[in-house]
Amino acid sequence: MTTKQSTGIILFAHGSRDPNWRLPFEAILDHFQKSHAQPAALAFLECMQPSLSEAIDKMIDSGIHEIRVVPVFLAVGSHVRKDLPILLEQARARHPQLSITATAAIGEQPAIQAAIAEFALSVI
Amino acid sequence: MTTKQSTGIILFAHGSRDPNWRLPFEAILDHFQKSHAQPAALAFLECMQPSLSEAIDKMIDSGIHEIRVVPVFLAVGSHVRKDLPILLEQARARHPQLSITATAAIGEQPAIQAAIAEFALSVI
Repeated sequence: MTTKQSTGIILFAHGSRDPNWRLPFEAILDHFQKSHAQPAALAFLECMQPSLSEAIDKMIDSGIHEIRVVPVFLAVGSHVRKDLPILLEQARARHPQLSITATAAIGEQPAIQAAIAEFALSVI
Repeated sequence: MTTKQSTGIILFAHGSRDPNWRLPFEAILDHFQKSHAQPAALAFLECMQPSLSEAIDKMIDSGIHEIRVVPVFLAVGSHVRKDLPILLEQARARHPQLSITATAAIGEQPAIQAAIAEFALSVI
């Protein structure tokens, strides 16, 4: 029997055929891991590995009992509104005893919106 | 003859068939306009109006001689690397006397990456 461990964070992004597309997400993960010992991983909807299902199952295999998925999307379209809930439901069906939840998309956060506006101000 | 006016900022995003998808971009524009009197507008690559060409031409019609396009994309794939330069070249061909340039994508900025990582930390 494993004891309850800390919450795992999965940064969930769209994915691309372009291998360099993932670099900003690697950088976000680096920022996260520099500030916090919490388990964290990337996952992608399309074209890139690991998939969200793979990332969730790997975290759970490592003994984590609670997962928060952070949709690293600027806005909510069908990927966040339809695809993500289906993937979460599938993960909960595989692991019914665990807590697997998602936050709002990062682009909906006023702090992120303000940071983007601040960058736009800085380039004038 | 018009005199040189201030730089116009265009926040350039992907676009979606979902009309609510644009809400975070409207919020970013609001943040920008609350902090700064600089002319600013949204533009979209696909599915939403105005297009980048329309937004550029409208700003130039209003007397602005210098435009900075901010790609509000989390990462650089073909939209930022291929589609955007073509649109900028077309705009420069229509307005050869003006300065029309683009910044790096917002997801490449360490401050934005840090803001996203901070949000992920806040949800644990």
